[in-house]
Amino acid sequence: MQQQKPLDQLASLLSKDMDEVNSLIKKRMASDAAPRIPEVTSHLIDAGGKRLRPLLTLAAAKMCQNKTPFHIHLAATVEFIHTATLLHDDVVDESKQRRGRPTANLLWDNQSSVLVGDYLFSRSFQLMVETGNLQVLDILANASATIAEGEVLQLTVAQNLNTTEETYFKVIRGKTAALFEAACKVGGVISNADDRFIDALASYGDALGICFQITDDLLDYNGKSDDLGKSIGDDFREQKMSLPLIKVLEKSNTTEMEFWERTIEKGEQNDNDFDYALELMIKHNALKDTVRDAKFWARKAKKSIMVLPESPLRNILADLPDFVVNRLV
Amino acid sequence: MQQQKPLDQLASLLSKDMDEVNSLIKKRMASDAAPRIPEVTSHLIDAGGKRLRPLLTLAAAKMCQNKTPFHIHLAATVEFIHTATLLHDDVVDESKQRRGRPTANLLWDNQSSVLVGDYLFSRSFQLMVETGNLQVLDILANASATIAEGEVLQLTVAQNLNTTEETYFKVIRGKTAALFEAACKVGGVISNADDRFIDALASYGDALGICFQITDDLLDYNGKSDDLGKSIGDDFREQKMSLPLIKVLEKSNTTEMEFWERTIEKGEQNDNDFDYALELMIKHNALKDTVRDAKFWARKAKKSIMVLPESPLRNILADLPDFVVNRLV
Repeated sequence: MQQQKPLDQLASLLSKDMDEVNSLIKKRMASDAAPRIPEVTSHLIDAGGKRLRPLLTLAAAKMCQNKTPFHIHLAATVEFIHTATLLHDDVVDESKQRRGRPTANLLWDNQSSVLVGDYLFSRSFQLMVETGNLQVLDILANASATIAEGEVLQLTVAQNLNTTEETYFKVIRGKTAALFEAACKVGGVISNADDRFIDALASYGDALGICFQITDDLLDYNGKSDDLGKSIGDDFREQKMSLPLIKVLEKSNTTEMEFWERTIEKGEQNDNDFDYALELMIKHNALKDTVRDAKFWARKAKKSIMVLPESPLRNILADLPDFVVNRLV
Repeated sequence: MQQQKPLDQLASLLSKDMDEVNSLIKKRMASDAAPRIPEVTSHLIDAGGKRLRPLLTLAAAKMCQNKTPFHIHLAATVEFIHTATLLHDDVVDESKQRRGRPTANLLWDNQSSVLVGDYLFSRSFQLMVETGNLQVLDILANASATIAEGEVLQLTVAQNLNTTEETYFKVIRGKTAALFEAACKVGGVISNADDRFIDALASYGDALGICFQITDDLLDYNGKSDDLGKSIGDDFREQKMSLPLIKVLEKSNTTEMEFWERTIEKGEQNDNDFDYALELMIKHNALKDTVRDAKFWARKAKKSIMVLPESPLRNILADLPDFVVNRLV
């Protein structure tokens, strides 16, 4: 057990609940009227996503002595929202690979990805309404709006070399951390937990999400394609203002800035540009500084979860942020 | 007053409520983080849509002696859902014109349309959660899922010459009638009306929506571009299995079927093909038969609303379906 990764430990401890979540997902992604829907969805859902978000919901509910059957609904809700955003993201980014497989927009078409994403979002909404818990609905409605807002903001600041770290944090709080935060928080709320536990769960989810996204940004520059199930250099090619890029820009000299203006601002990229981008990031410690930030958020997450009473689940969640950052090393 | 169109009468009678709805829409479509959002949204919302769906919600609530402030929220919700689906539809259909103006996907890009649509959908969700009425949430969650399902079904039967009228009705109940039905029904539910009034409102909305969509299908073949604010022949060019097309296929001979196989199934279209398609529809009474169906649903809508107690609003709603069909003649 000691050698198992925290995520695998989490999956083992919560496997019974997770089986129920998976059955509910299968049941609710069906559509008699439109067989295209389960085709597209199962392509993505069966592709072996880590189910990190629903596991967080289940763990939070269990740690808070949940007595309702609705943690299952909420875990499925969170996974549906996540899957819907992936489908739309891949259209927006024109991505070709996700979880090591061709994306739905490539296998079917953009139209299917847009509409099936809408369907899953509606289905998530039905699932959460079934809990009958208005506080949960409020949290998830706000999270959904924050996600969409973050995605639009990301789109509008793409290619903008003046993007600040402050804006970057707005973007990733939206596109990533909002759902992590909501996933943890609703697990506490549905269990009718103390406010200070609910706040601790929310703050854990937020910090874990930020740490997760910063790590993802890093891996896009210095990871291996095999580990990621996606192509290295996607962010560079898509001219995305990710954290390592924002950091290297702060230190680049005039000649180097001309390189960034050509490749990121104007999007004129040649074969060796990605390698040179990486070289500049190493030269200016942009990758190291980004790792440092990821570790800061990992510590913050760990500290937040320590507010909850000691338990095997809490200890696993406390180990998880370090593991997320260590995907790097 | 007698000469005014029913929709204008509705707008006059409900103008005070509608002003509140418009203020709420303006307030909620804002986004400090991402200015692109209100830009895209106001392009569509200010373009002079008829606000038919929110007017239906307001009318239903007023007829049912609503005492809550939430009819305003629900009317705004319904308009946001509608606007979100328009943004996504225009991406899916690659449309270039909507309400007589270039579409958002043309002015900005598909990415903005997808993500701003997601944002509006989330905002609609926040608005409805604020009502605190779980029955309303259930109705709107189900309607959202039905809409998305109808849109996916429409996509998968496009170009399929074997599409039946039964499938066609599934598609339009989804893409159009579900929101009309929900818009009317939630007006009754929020007012805590008798079940038979709520059922009558739902059935009115369903029939009116079907009648509206069939008429839209017809106008796409025999309307005038000026009236529509969109291009005539879009359905033909997009190879959509609309009702006039399904009807003409039933009566086409072998040679004529070759024409449909080339133009609709294979999408190989030349300059004069649309005129010939129209000629065949007239020859086989496909347009006349479609008008007959539209009138059938108009009568059904009128009959449904007659269940409600006599009032000026009820009488306007009773006149509305005929007006919808008479856009034709």
